[in-house]
Amino acid sequence: MSQESFLSEVASNLETLREKGPLIHQITNYVVMNETANITLAMGGSPVMAHAPEEVEEMVGFAGALVLNIGTLESAWIDSMVIAGKAANAKGIPVVLDPVGVGATRLRTEAAGRILDEVDVTVLRGNAAEVSVLAGAEAEIKGVDAVGEFAALEKDAKNMSRSLGCVVAITGANDVISDTERTIVVSNGDPMMAKITGTGCMSSALVGCFLAVNSDPVLAAAGGLTAFGIAGQKAAAISGNRPGTFHVALYDEVAELNADAITSLGKATFIGT
Amino acid sequence: MSQESFLSEVASNLETLREKGPLIHQITNYVVMNETANITLAMGGSPVMAHAPEEVEEMVGFAGALVLNIGTLESAWIDSMVIAGKAANAKGIPVVLDPVGVGATRLRTEAAGRILDEVDVTVLRGNAAEVSVLAGAEAEIKGVDAVGEFAALEKDAKNMSRSLGCVVAITGANDVISDTERTIVVSNGDPMMAKITGTGCMSSALVGCFLAVNSDPVLAAAGGLTAFGIAGQKAAAISGNRPGTFHVALYDEVAELNADAITSLGKATFIGT
Amino acid sequence: MSQESFLSEVASNLETLREKGPLIHQITNYVVMNETANITLAMGGSPVMAHAPEEVEEMVGFAGALVLNIGTLESAWIDSMVIAGKAANAKGIPVVLDPVGVGATRLRTEAAGRILDEVDVTVLRGNAAEVSVLAGAEAEIKGVDAVGEFAALEKDAKNMSRSLGCVVAITGANDVISDTERTIVVSNGDPMMAKITGTGCMSSALVGCFLAVNSDPVLAAAGGLTAFGIAGQKAAAISGNRPGTFHVALYDEVAELNADAITSLGKATFIGT
Repeated sequence: MSQESFLSEVASNLETLREKGPLIHQITNYVVMNETANITLAMGGSPVMAHAPEEVEEMVGFAGALVLNIGTLESAWIDSMVIAGKAANAKGIPVVLDPVGVGATRLRTEAAGRILDEVDVTVLRGNAAEVSVLAGAEAEIKGVDAVGEFAALEKDAKNMSRSLGCVVAITGANDVISDTERTIVVSNGDPMMAKITGTGCMSSALVGCFLAVNSDPVLAAAGGLTAFGIAGQKAAAISGNRPGTFHVALYDEVAELNADAITSLGKATFIGT
Repeated sequence: MSQESFLSEVASNLETLREKGPLIHQITNYVVMNETANITLAMGGSPVMAHAPEEVEEMVGFAGALVLNIGTLESAWIDSMVIAGKAANAKGIPVVLDPVGVGATRLRTEAAGRILDEVDVTVLRGNAAEVSVLAGAEAEIKGVDAVGEFAALEKDAKNMSRSLGCVVAITGANDVISDTERTIVVSNGDPMMAKITGTGCMSSALVGCFLAVNSDPVLAAAGGLTAFGIAGQKAAAISGNRPGTFHVALYDEVAELNADAITSLGKATFIGT
Repeated sequence: MSQESFLSEVASNLETLREKGPLIHQITNYVVMNETANITLAMGGSPVMAHAPEEVEEMVGFAGALVLNIGTLESAWIDSMVIAGKAANAKGIPVVLDPVGVGATRLRTEAAGRILDEVDVTVLRGNAAEVSVLAGAEAEIKGVDAVGEFAALEKDAKNMSRSLGCVVAITGANDVISDTERTIVVSNGDPMMAKITGTGCMSSALVGCFLAVNSDPVLAAAGGLTAFGIAGQKAAAISGNRPGTFHVALYDEVAELNADAITSLGKATFIGT
């Protein structure tokens, strides 16, 4: 696929998102709930946060995608994530897993492992350390700082996708999205995105938004990360090193994204097929 | 009542709020806790969030109003809301119920029903779909986009107030506030208020603020919504379509509200008596 | 110690914070989690929020400091705070306790008392009412509005530190930091800091940041409060009375703090030794 046709598809997905406003059901952490709700709204989705075991099955039935995030985890929430994930699977609703902090504690590692075992996760979105932990030591992957570095890791990314049984979306200075056959490197974004909390979680929510309007999970994940990265670099351009100002501008720039910004600023490299 | 005397009362309530800073006890959802606390502060109230069953009864005793909100619900929280609500009733403290997402899941519908059964709710603040669900199918009400449309629904609004046993405050393009005898349509606000999460929840918190300083719940609810709507339209006027900027401006404009803004910009239509 | 050498140490601590980015483990309330995470990042620390009893012991092992905050309390969270606190003690990791709302309800008073009993708290950071409640009626202390007023209370502050067995950091118009021998009054900050929710909680998080890089808890606590106060007054200077704008500027100004701002704007008075 050419970058041009990919970006054109991302722009088309964005338009669909804003027309349809799909519900994005998020079971996520306390720190970022407001942030992921607002970034979902800014991109065109309709966020709903619901985590009670009594209601997640019903709620996910209305959703275009389900986003599971294991920050500020409690054991009862893991059960709810599994219930919601299974219900999503039964209805063909795509599922994003964001394994925040996996590897740091047994609770998080076991939770992410259990969700991957019991739920068909469509896209695993994490940083290089988190995805490496879940894919096992053999496939350990480091952060990708340049496209050239990634070329050497293409086989690893595909192996990680194979061993995890889902699309992997590894975010960092460059974002690497891969299934067992295709790999895309997205080179948008800005270091300021690491200066506020929750941008990783926001990116997972936006992958959920694009999954709701694009049935190809590699393109959907890469599309969500491209759109968010463009907004991030535009926000950084007007914010200097001021994180409060950047945080505000990030919502503004996501809301102001349009086809022109995406096709002119998007940077996606296709490796392999 | 004339619009002029109503707006003058709203301005007077605002002044009292800022002088007395009543405690507004909120048992609300994770997504908006920070937002409803900050909007309460900006209007002049003193927010406190407390939801543990062991402390809600004591805490509400210090409050000028109690605000219950069923977003991000868990069953334990419903019990706390009922305990707090009953304690508020026993002490004559007004209670606002915000039935977020009622109708979407059984948990939320049963929770809102239980609270309405066991607690004397002073004002039910929701959107048209939420209030319709609670009032029963016969009284189904659609969103009100123009005052003219509302005139036809006046009887329904009064019936909903009668069947629910409380003041109803239905927010949307216009806000409709009604008890069994009086109906007020507030035509302030801006569509940008729907572009960030939590403005509905904020409006419930502000109804709580005005209930703490005005013993007439119809006027208090209409007053809170008028004040918030004015701030919303002022914030939108300086924010364009930028939701991050609008969110920040909304707090600024609530804090800057004064008698002059309220009497010159408030738009309230009295229907019936 | 002279003000000059103190401020020079604060500036040096700030530089170390930004070089090392120590993990600051926070078990804090729902209202402010996003805010304390972002202010920690802006100062140079790395926030992590984790409260599950299964993981707090592991998580705190990676941390440079632990911050416990009893807002939006639940009984299960108290247990986690004690587990985390004991683990921190065993590893020599400093602990900050922020007793939000202590005295208002039995749950909070008992929780703060239990934490102080079972955990070696390094610094208790609260307002005058909260610290007085915990130190017992004999040592009741009022808010300090001027340095002169404080001089009379110096003995009380030392007694409170003695009876509580930790450094006390009492924030208000002036901040008073004391152990049983040394007392520092910090006169930075701005009344706008009381116009948004969470600045008290943020100050506790920042005391945690400075404890991670300064082994003298009196100087660390005073340093964190000095740095935050300077940022607060700079943010207020550009925000007028607009709380939304101030909130954004506060993160910007914390991120922009440097040695020059600290040494030129810091105001610390040493009383006693």
